[in-house]
Amino acid sequence: MKIATHTETFTNPLYLESGRILEPYELKYETYGALNEDKSNVVVICHALTGSHHAAGQYEGERKAGWWDEMIGDGKSIDTEDFFVICVNVIGSCFGSTGPMSPKYPASDPYRMKFPVITISDMVKAQRILFDRLGIHKAHAVIGGSMGGMQALCFAIEHPNFASCHILLASTHATGPWAIAFNKVAREALIQDPAFKDGFYDPVEIKESGLSGLATGRMCGYISYLSPDSMDKKFGRNYVQTDGLYELFGKFEIERYLDYNGLNFVNWFDPLSFLYITKAINIFDATRNYDSLEDSLGRINSEITLISFSNDLLFLPREMEKIHQTMGNIGKENLSKYIEIESSYGHDAFLVEIDKFAHHVRDALKER
Amino acid sequence: MKIATHTETFTNPLYLESGRILEPYELKYETYGALNEDKSNVVVICHALTGSHHAAGQYEGERKAGWWDEMIGDGKSIDTEDFFVICVNVIGSCFGSTGPMSPKYPASDPYRMKFPVITISDMVKAQRILFDRLGIHKAHAVIGGSMGGMQALCFAIEHPNFASCHILLASTHATGPWAIAFNKVAREALIQDPAFKDGFYDPVEIKESGLSGLATGRMCGYISYLSPDSMDKKFGRNYVQTDGLYELFGKFEIERYLDYNGLNFVNWFDPLSFLYITKAINIFDATRNYDSLEDSLGRINSEITLISFSNDLLFLPREMEKIHQTMGNIGKENLSKYIEIESSYGHDAFLVEIDKFAHHVRDALKER
Repeated sequence: MKIATHTETFTNPLYLESGRILEPYELKYETYGALNEDKSNVVVICHALTGSHHAAGQYEGERKAGWWDEMIGDGKSIDTEDFFVICVNVIGSCFGSTGPMSPKYPASDPYRMKFPVITISDMVKAQRILFDRLGIHKAHAVIGGSMGGMQALCFAIEHPNFASCHILLASTHATGPWAIAFNKVAREALIQDPAFKDGFYDPVEIKESGLSGLATGRMCGYISYLSPDSMDKKFGRNYVQTDGLYELFGKFEIERYLDYNGLNFVNWFDPLSFLYITKAINIFDATRNYDSLEDSLGRINSEITLISFSNDLLFLPREMEKIHQTMGNIGKENLSKYIEIESSYGHDAFLVEIDKFAHHVRDALKER
Repeated sequence: MKIATHTETFTNPLYLESGRILEPYELKYETYGALNEDKSNVVVICHALTGSHHAAGQYEGERKAGWWDEMIGDGKSIDTEDFFVICVNVIGSCFGSTGPMSPKYPASDPYRMKFPVITISDMVKAQRILFDRLGIHKAHAVIGGSMGGMQALCFAIEHPNFASCHILLASTHATGPWAIAFNKVAREALIQDPAFKDGFYDPVEIKESGLSGLATGRMCGYISYLSPDSMDKKFGRNYVQTDGLYELFGKFEIERYLDYNGLNFVNWFDPLSFLYITKAINIFDATRNYDSLEDSLGRINSEITLISFSNDLLFLPREMEKIHQTMGNIGKENLSKYIEIESSYGHDAFLVEIDKFAHHVRDALKER
C-alpha cells in the first residue's frame, strides 16, 4: 500500500457557518493506494474527535499504526488495491490542519480562544475545497465513525452529488443532551483548571507539568466511549496490586486505567482543539438550516449505510435508526440500510470490533 | 404525622472495617409516627449519597419537604399511622452525624482527610448501635434506594435477625467499574481544584467563592442519575434563550441545568463528605468477607424485595436481578422478589417515579 502525507495551504478565505472566516488555512491529509485514471475510486475517511489524517499504515518509529489500520489496506475491507483512500485532518484539530494553536495571520501568535467556532459543516466544506483542488469532484464513498459519521451525513445532505455512498458508524443525526452533558463535564474540568490559563497555557509546559483538568475531562470521555459490559469484562472490581498485596481500600484497576489515559492525553492532544471540536460535536444537528429531518434527508440522493452498536451509550442505536426510518418515511428506503451490530464494547466498538462490521463496509462499497 | 429530630452521642468507640475507630461519635436521626408498645412497627429508611435523615415532612421555612416525603406519611405507602419510621444520617455525611468536618476529639479541629475510611457496613453498624440504645432490637423493615439499598442489603446479610423484610431500590450487590468510573471523574475534579486545598478548605469561604471542582464532580454525578431518555424529554437540544433570541452557538439547556445544580451543590453538601461517601460506595461489595455471592446471600433469612428501574444506568437492573437469581440458586427463592419498573428516568426514578413503585413497597410491607 502506497501511503503519502501532504499539507495543502489555501489563501482564499474559508467562509464559516458562524459568519467568520479562516484565512489563510492549511489542511493536512494522508492518502493510501493510487488514484485511478478517471478518478472514480476515491474513498474519503472522516475521523472522530481525537483522530487524525493518519488512519492507516505505520511509520518508522511509530508505536501504533493509524487508527483504522485494520480496515484500510491492500486486501482489507477498504481495499487500497481498488480504492484511493484519503483522510483529512479536520480544521480545528491539532495534527497539522489549521486549529486554535495555529498562527493568527499576519501575526505569528496563535489564535487560542480567538479561533472561530467550527461546525461539522465547516469541516466538510474545507475538505470539499481540498478535493476540488486535487481535481477530485466525485467520490465513490465517504465513511466515518462517531464525529466522522456526522461528517459523512453532512456530505450526504449538503454535498448530495459528491459521493455515491456514505457509511456512518456509531454516529447520530444530532448530538443529544446526553452526549452534550458528557462534553460539558469534560469541558468544565478543563476550563476550570488554573493551568489552562483561560487558554493561554504554554503548550510545552503543560506537557511537562500536566494538565489535570484535561486529564479529568478525558476520563469523562472514556466513560462515554466504553460501556458497563466492557468495563465489567476488562476491569471488574479488581484492585491494583501493590507489593504483592491487594490494598482493600486502594485503587481500582478502572481508576488506574482512567488515570493513565487521562494523564497521557496532554502528550498527544491540544486542550483548545479539544474545546473547539467538542463544541462542533455539540452543535451538530442535521436539521439545522432545514425544517425537519425529513427535509434535510430529502436532499440525499445516494446510498447511506448506517451501522450502530448495541451497547453504544454515547450515540444510541435508535439515533441512527431514526435516520433510516425517516428515509423510509420520505420514500427513500431504497437508499438507506440500517445494521445494528451486537457488541459489548460501547461506542468504541467502531474502532475495536472490526471483525463484526468490516464485511458490511466491504459490501456497501461493492454494491455501487 | 408526628416528626421528631434527635442527635445521639456515643462515647464508646465505633470499631470500623478499616481497623480504625471513631470515638466519640454522633448520629442524627429523624422519626415519623409513633413506636407501638411491643416495638414491632419500626421501619428503617436508609438514605443515598447526598441524602439525609430528613426523609419526610416539611419544617417551617423549608423550601422543600424531606427527600422521600411522597412515600412516608399518614396514609402513604410507608404509612406512619401503622409504622414508626426512622431515618439516620450516615456517619461520614454532613447533616449532623459525625463526618470529616466534625471535631477530632480531644481537639476542636476537624478531622478533614484524617477521618477514617468508612464502609457501608460501618454505616449500618452505627445504626444498629443507635437502635439498640433506643431499645429497638428488631425492625419490621429496612428500606433504601441507591446507597440506601446497599445498607438494606448489608442489614440483611450482616444483621440477618434484625429486620423481617428488606426493600432495595435502584441498587446493587457490588458497585461496578462503570459506577466507580463516574465517581473517579467526580472525585478527580474535586481533588484537583486548588480551592479544595487538599482538604483544608474553609467551609464558609467555599460557599462564597464557589468550588468549581465539586460543581464539575456533581455534574458528572447527574449524568449517571439521569438517562438519555429523561434528558431528551426534559432538555432535548434546546438552547438557552437570551434576550428573546436563541444563540445558535450558545449554551444548551442541559448545560445550564448542570451548571445550576453543580454550582449550587457546595451550598448544601460538604466536599470531604462527598469524597468519603463516594469511597464507601466504591468499596461496597456484598461478597467481601465471604467466599461468593451465594455465600453472603446464604446468611439472609428474611424477605428481600428488589426493585430496579429499566433505564437505570448507574446500577443496572441486571445487578439486582443477579441477587434474585442467586437467592434462587441457593434455594431461597421464597424469600426474594424481583420487580423491574419501566421508567425513562434512569437512576433517579426511585426519587421521582413514586407512583410506579409505591404500591410494591406497600405490598412488601404488608406481606409480613
